[in-house]
Amino acid sequence: MRVEIVAIGTELLLGQIADTNAAWLGEHLALAGVDSHFHQAVGDNLERIVLALRTALARSDGVVTSGGLGPTHDDITRQAIAEVMQVPLRQDPDVAARIRELFASRGREMPASNLRQAEVPEGATVIEQRLGTAPGLICPVGEKVVYALPGVPYELYELFERGVLPDLRRRVAAEGGTGVIASRVLRTWGSSESALGELLAPRIAALGTAAGSPTLALLASGIEGIKIRVTVKAPDRETADEWLAAEEAELRAVVGEAAFGTDDDTMETAVARQLGRLGWTLGLAESLTGGLASSRLVSQVGASAWFRGAVVSYSAEVKQRLLGVPAGPVVSEEAARAMAVGATEALGADVGLSLTGVAGPDAAEGQRPGTVFVGMALPGEVPAAQRLQLPGDRDRVRQMAVISAMNLLRRRLAAVPDSG
Amino acid sequence: MRVEIVAIGTELLLGQIADTNAAWLGEHLALAGVDSHFHQAVGDNLERIVLALRTALARSDGVVTSGGLGPTHDDITRQAIAEVMQVPLRQDPDVAARIRELFASRGREMPASNLRQAEVPEGATVIEQRLGTAPGLICPVGEKVVYALPGVPYELYELFERGVLPDLRRRVAAEGGTGVIASRVLRTWGSSESALGELLAPRIAALGTAAGSPTLALLASGIEGIKIRVTVKAPDRETADEWLAAEEAELRAVVGEAAFGTDDDTMETAVARQLGRLGWTLGLAESLTGGLASSRLVSQVGASAWFRGAVVSYSAEVKQRLLGVPAGPVVSEEAARAMAVGATEALGADVGLSLTGVAGPDAAEGQRPGTVFVGMALPGEVPAAQRLQLPGDRDRVRQMAVISAMNLLRRRLAAVPDSG
Repeated sequence: MRVEIVAIGTELLLGQIADTNAAWLGEHLALAGVDSHFHQAVGDNLERIVLALRTALARSDGVVTSGGLGPTHDDITRQAIAEVMQVPLRQDPDVAARIRELFASRGREMPASNLRQAEVPEGATVIEQRLGTAPGLICPVGEKVVYALPGVPYELYELFERGVLPDLRRRVAAEGGTGVIASRVLRTWGSSESALGELLAPRIAALGTAAGSPTLALLASGIEGIKIRVTVKAPDRETADEWLAAEEAELRAVVGEAAFGTDDDTMETAVARQLGRLGWTLGLAESLTGGLASSRLVSQVGASAWFRGAVVSYSAEVKQRLLGVPAGPVVSEEAARAMAVGATEALGADVGLSLTGVAGPDAAEGQRPGTVFVGMALPGEVPAAQRLQLPGDRDRVRQMAVISAMNLLRRRLAAVPDSG
Repeated sequence: MRVEIVAIGTELLLGQIADTNAAWLGEHLALAGVDSHFHQAVGDNLERIVLALRTALARSDGVVTSGGLGPTHDDITRQAIAEVMQVPLRQDPDVAARIRELFASRGREMPASNLRQAEVPEGATVIEQRLGTAPGLICPVGEKVVYALPGVPYELYELFERGVLPDLRRRVAAEGGTGVIASRVLRTWGSSESALGELLAPRIAALGTAAGSPTLALLASGIEGIKIRVTVKAPDRETADEWLAAEEAELRAVVGEAAFGTDDDTMETAVARQLGRLGWTLGLAESLTGGLASSRLVSQVGASAWFRGAVVSYSAEVKQRLLGVPAGPVVSEEAARAMAVGATEALGADVGLSLTGVAGPDAAEGQRPGTVFVGMALPGEVPAAQRLQLPGDRDRVRQMAVISAMNLLRRRLAAVPDSG
């Protein structure tokens, strides 16, 4: 099964937005064992979209389109697909009803033009819309197929996984594709790609003799660390999971504490897991990161069980007033320790985590940009602070500071035994 | 002159890197007055690259390729172009000499494989390499042309501007075309795409008679609002700017307060601009958003001039202790007002902005997920609060709450006259 991605939108051709959908779709097609040999992008022009679709269908078995399903006059993907299918568009009453409901639930009146989004090429199957007003479409073209998805990334992801992927899997199975390609990602933080590569070299050399002949890839994911992806081809899902678990155990033995989770785990998940295990609550004091650590931690469902809150002390005066930091330099180990202790007291938390430092672009208190102090106060332990020197611009320093601080907290908490 | 971009590299199809070169090339072709109706991406496979190039040459006058010019066995763009031109590859002695020099100047020995990069299709013109080892190539195919550039972004940019652009300009002039294509984006928040579309319909109908015959496109950008993009084709950059400014004024008159900025402006920029104008400082009290609003605002360079800090009061107890919120429901207009006032007092700020609500997935205090109250306390005004009902999952509710709150603050501040 070969599937081509056709991204639709003049803004892509003009370079006004980078096409992140194509990259996401490419990755997820590959994970499903579907080949993708070509991508195209085309503007909001009926004749050209039709040409791009015909070109794609001539050289692939299926097409996934993104974009051009909105309610305005330049959203013409529906018409283009109908032309390629040589069928008319018809209004789908269920899609129309859901669009009306969506507007009603937001207490807003629906402009008549939104009903354009309920138009469906005759013979196409609708993937019900849940997050936005545009549904996904499964459009048969002879033995081949065009899947149409909206360009809004989170809508596209959800519709692809719920509607496109199951249909693709059926087609792959129908053409006698047996077996599954499955992957697991081990997430690591704190090692460079080349250092991990050297560490893993003996394991990579031994892969040929491991169950399922796994392949390994290292994916540098910027501030989210390095992902180690293991892929196996197995007769069924169960066997694949077994082989992946065996390989994960091998890899964990090699990378040790640098591994903080698998697949969809994040550093937040890892911190939440440790706090849950210990039954402790957390309070933050953030300076240069301005609430970024706090906002990442509360993104966890169930955070209210262990997250008390944060004091974002962007000015020195707030550090002193709310956190009891003594007068003096605020970019220092002393201030970081005082902020962590102050967070436990001000917020009534068991554990305090603090960040203070210089995001840049200018130096402050004689410290150069990228200088960050992380403070921690744990029950029954002497408050501690650690100095970091982080690379990059203002935004990157703040992002790196947050994930570094969460990683330090995770490792510190992991060292605390169960209170049993 | 229509030019198609063909990006070459299997890593693009697998989504391992996003194709930023295509966006850059698209933008720079448009600025040069060259139309680009299609982009393609293709993997490192000779047959498929040849097919992609032939497809592109059939529907465009020229092609720019990026990638596949390296020294390894999977760098086969040179061969593919030679096949399309139906000519052999020959080693270019000048290119080979520069590769040798480059290695010598870095004190490194040249692997023999690097001489692959000196192979040039017969009849092609070389754009001398300066930053890396791969030259650019200008390859005539009948009356049409293929420009080959390396995939390393900074090498691609330099070779495009020095070698490709002058050649393109000659071709555009030869076919009697002149001028530039330029765009401006007006950023809006608070209207749906369809409502803006209806509002703008009369303006769109009148575009044909406006200076430069501008075209308009609405781009839904998820939680960042709707972008209105105006594009004009003008004889020179100065005239383009003049026509864009005229059209921007027309659009602002239609969309009114929904417009918060242009091009690279963000909602944070707009808030910062108003606070700067009034000389006021800001303090936040965040509940469901957990520091997200705060972290977005401090991302502005110079935020320390007007940003005091935030209290992230994720638990009711913290709301009472640090913000002086009275006991009782905390998802309410009363609590939002008390939090905004509490933020000004606890943080020593002129203006207080607060967010409290239910992110979900579960209801709280009898309020369903998506219920959000935004509170504001401005100098000399009675504290106010506003209820919002936001769609989507936990993460989306939080994101929407933050941008909605910043937008309410922006509009409220904009209504305050200069203190003169």
